[in-house]
Amino acid sequence: MKTLIIGGGAAGASCAARLRRNDEKAEITVLEQSDEISIANCGLPYYIGNVINSEETMHVSDVNKFRNWFNINVLLNTKAVSIDRNNRTVKTADNQEFSYDRLVIATGATPFVPPFEGLNKDKTFTLRTLSDANSIKNYIKEHEVSKAVVVGAGFIGVEMAENLCEPGIRTTIVELSSHIMPNVDIEVATVAQNKLKEKGIEIILNDGVKAFSDDKVILTSGNTVDFDIVIMSIGVMPQIELAKEAGLEVSRGIVVDSTLKTSDEYIYAAGDNVEITDFTTGSKALIPLAGPANRQGRIIADNICGKTETYKNTQGSSVVKIFELTLAAVGANEDRLKKLNIPYLKTFIYSNSHAGYYPGAKQILYKMLFTKEGRILGLQAIGEEGVEKRVDVVATVMRLNGSVHDLLDAELCYAPPFNSAKDAVNILGMNALNIIDGKVRMAFPEDLKDSYLIDVRPKAVFMNETIDGAVNIPITEIRNRLDEIPRDRKVVMFCNTGYTSYVASRIVNQNGFENVYSFGGGIVFFKSQQNFLNSNNS
Amino acid sequence: MKTLIIGGGAAGASCAARLRRNDEKAEITVLEQSDEISIANCGLPYYIGNVINSEETMHVSDVNKFRNWFNINVLLNTKAVSIDRNNRTVKTADNQEFSYDRLVIATGATPFVPPFEGLNKDKTFTLRTLSDANSIKNYIKEHEVSKAVVVGAGFIGVEMAENLCEPGIRTTIVELSSHIMPNVDIEVATVAQNKLKEKGIEIILNDGVKAFSDDKVILTSGNTVDFDIVIMSIGVMPQIELAKEAGLEVSRGIVVDSTLKTSDEYIYAAGDNVEITDFTTGSKALIPLAGPANRQGRIIADNICGKTETYKNTQGSSVVKIFELTLAAVGANEDRLKKLNIPYLKTFIYSNSHAGYYPGAKQILYKMLFTKEGRILGLQAIGEEGVEKRVDVVATVMRLNGSVHDLLDAELCYAPPFNSAKDAVNILGMNALNIIDGKVRMAFPEDLKDSYLIDVRPKAVFMNETIDGAVNIPITEIRNRLDEIPRDRKVVMFCNTGYTSYVASRIVNQNGFENVYSFGGGIVFFKSQQNFLNSNNS
Repeated sequence: MKTLIIGGGAAGASCAARLRRNDEKAEITVLEQSDEISIANCGLPYYIGNVINSEETMHVSDVNKFRNWFNINVLLNTKAVSIDRNNRTVKTADNQEFSYDRLVIATGATPFVPPFEGLNKDKTFTLRTLSDANSIKNYIKEHEVSKAVVVGAGFIGVEMAENLCEPGIRTTIVELSSHIMPNVDIEVATVAQNKLKEKGIEIILNDGVKAFSDDKVILTSGNTVDFDIVIMSIGVMPQIELAKEAGLEVSRGIVVDSTLKTSDEYIYAAGDNVEITDFTTGSKALIPLAGPANRQGRIIADNICGKTETYKNTQGSSVVKIFELTLAAVGANEDRLKKLNIPYLKTFIYSNSHAGYYPGAKQILYKMLFTKEGRILGLQAIGEEGVEKRVDVVATVMRLNGSVHDLLDAELCYAPPFNSAKDAVNILGMNALNIIDGKVRMAFPEDLKDSYLIDVRPKAVFMNETIDGAVNIPITEIRNRLDEIPRDRKVVMFCNTGYTSYVASRIVNQNGFENVYSFGGGIVFFKSQQNFLNSNNS
Repeated sequence: MKTLIIGGGAAGASCAARLRRNDEKAEITVLEQSDEISIANCGLPYYIGNVINSEETMHVSDVNKFRNWFNINVLLNTKAVSIDRNNRTVKTADNQEFSYDRLVIATGATPFVPPFEGLNKDKTFTLRTLSDANSIKNYIKEHEVSKAVVVGAGFIGVEMAENLCEPGIRTTIVELSSHIMPNVDIEVATVAQNKLKEKGIEIILNDGVKAFSDDKVILTSGNTVDFDIVIMSIGVMPQIELAKEAGLEVSRGIVVDSTLKTSDEYIYAAGDNVEITDFTTGSKALIPLAGPANRQGRIIADNICGKTETYKNTQGSSVVKIFELTLAAVGANEDRLKKLNIPYLKTFIYSNSHAGYYPGAKQILYKMLFTKEGRILGLQAIGEEGVEKRVDVVATVMRLNGSVHDLLDAELCYAPPFNSAKDAVNILGMNALNIIDGKVRMAFPEDLKDSYLIDVRPKAVFMNETIDGAVNIPITEIRNRLDEIPRDRKVVMFCNTGYTSYVASRIVNQNGFENVYSFGGGIVFFKSQQNFLNSNNS
């Protein structure tokens, strides 16, 4: 069996290596248009920021290993330009022709740069390959770079902002939407934004690039931002031209079935160039992530060797470091659910990274989305420690079609330095079931403005700081002060992070008040949202 | 509804609080024999070691909160001494009588101390309650304590050893079995033992206490160990006398059905006094853990209020900090599977805590047990960072009846500071499936002695250090040196941690060698096992 693989990134390289392990006699050829295969793309921002010092470590694997360990024919600087499906051959830019029994298209994606007026290519960079990273490093080394603009605030944009800011470059993020990190919602993104601003990074939201002058970005709003260097990180485009020209079925990405076969029975595709099905919503999507690309490459190798492995769709599990913070997410966010008209319930909780009485515990903010039947639609979390751990567990429950009840039943490793006997995962399950069962009515930031606010914390705490307009009825007095609670309007109770107000709302609800809500996340959450607004106004 | 709860620990307290949240009108009484409720038992070793400084923080909740928030009648220093099931009343030591509609027995467990000859109670302590902890703290403060003996090396024993050693007390652990931490197997325990010894803690294995003299422990071997203080942490006994005397069905613990009801329809039991079903093996077991106790308390509260919640058995998910190390485990270990005659396959892998090219990555050792059908039976892991995270994910897969294939398909949050694109969880799944599919034959430490050993690493690395008796055939040369590999005996290939030898064994297996095995964990694993043996002999 002769297999030809176009592209030596995560999908192509893992497919090639697995093919060899499956079949010592297979003929395997990899065509790679750049001069490197299997590099650590996800580490590039840290390589630029000198967190990772050596270029050598950026090679996950190298050509020699593929040749000598795996006996794979790797051709670098070899760009495939056309596929002849009838004769099962591929032509390259340098006029070589390769025949195949099975073809794997793993061409990945490339950064998207709109044709902006005045764009100076010498000062404008994208980041996808090691040579991109070296270009940025060299430019910074060879020029006086004190001001950077990062356009687009997804994973790469945010990681680049951190890695430009840390060595002392004044950095501005420009983002078209209302918040950074479009995979999460505004409340969670706001916490990340506060951190970036605290570190001195300027964030311009709801504004886009209109044009460039030599050392200024001109924004749609008319404002300008000075720069010495620009990083364009708006997004990536799947590389589908080759497939399209060969007449394969394509949509936004190459169309594949569950075995990752294209519309041609001899051709597979994997990685960032493939349109996948979003596990949570069932909709078609482009979700360019390294884990899924690796998994897909392996599945294709097994299928070429006679198995029938299926790809079980992409959940979009992701994590990003934002200075001391970790932001992790899985599944759909509220924005996306709204867009798809999928009904949902939501909740916010704060929970300690580990037992509160053990030193170093830090609060983590969670936003969970779920259906009234208990299906989990998405989780977003931000905090300092143990953030992605909880998202991983919830992603696993989702993957196995578990429900919020399974979060409650999750039995996680417990000791005080690591978590609490009731882990955040359990609390998310309890909270969701209480909401579904009608045991608690949750209020959200958008509800505070027009509601009657009751701070249920002790008086001394209330006197020190509360939400404007709130009255104080400590939980310990609430059973005797029910007559002070209005019945004719929405009442929102709050405390520090949401547990006391939940208990208080139970007392009041059971005493016949239908209109009393608990503000999940409490005053800590409220303040995390306020800070950013305040600093924006100042 | 009048509910009486005997015991104000994790199970009793969580039951009481949930009852109130369920039903504002319920009558709820808690009888607690000590002078404290709902304390942070799991933090006690750290409180003794002054990692946790304040006694106040050790109260997860307090009596006032139970009374004032939850309107619960809590009686401290009130010991229940008998249950009259016909009249549904409970008598206390001080001759009070309490009637109930529903009774919850949450009496927990107490430390087991055999009646050793010569045991000096003034110098011998157990650790279960806050007052136990204060006794130990006071004894250390008021006496010259420079030598401690910890008898029994489970969770409490190991945590106590660390917390005695850190402030400078010379500490010796005495353990009857062949290794510490009986919930894991010897290979994983050995890594923990190395760490304890590195920190100066002496470990005596395969030896027990025979008797005490005033300042010496006399061991079964005849050896003696000097002490100023002894911590007895052999294990705990469920408190079942009350239930037994009332004629309730008891085994090693109180017998309950899946709704946590005892043999009396008006009486429930929860926590460390209950015999549960081991989720993994289906056998009956005592697994005293805080998480399950909390969960059980909540289930009982819901069932008393008319729901039919079931307890879905205990997996034994656990974690312990051992200085810089984290040791975590779930499910059954090899010792237990052997005892229960459950057939199993096993594997060891090493995997980085996060991407190897990102600073600070540390190797984690995993031991996984599974059936040839792919059911996961248990996972043990030890390392510095991200250890319990992977065990939590695997525990969740087990809980939802997933298989090793689901480990492979797990889509976990990935970025270089947090893990690798192929996470350890994925690699465990790949490895297990390769074993099941016959694609790799694994060798274990016990196989090394009588096998022909081939080091497949580069020659320079081999020359520097290898396993005694090994020959060197680098993977890059193996296809040309097949004739050097014997066919008439077991051949074990090894490398640093197991991946290269796996690839090498695939090459050789496919060239017709049936007798070639890969040593999972490689030389790093081998050395981790040797160190302890060497230091024991020295």
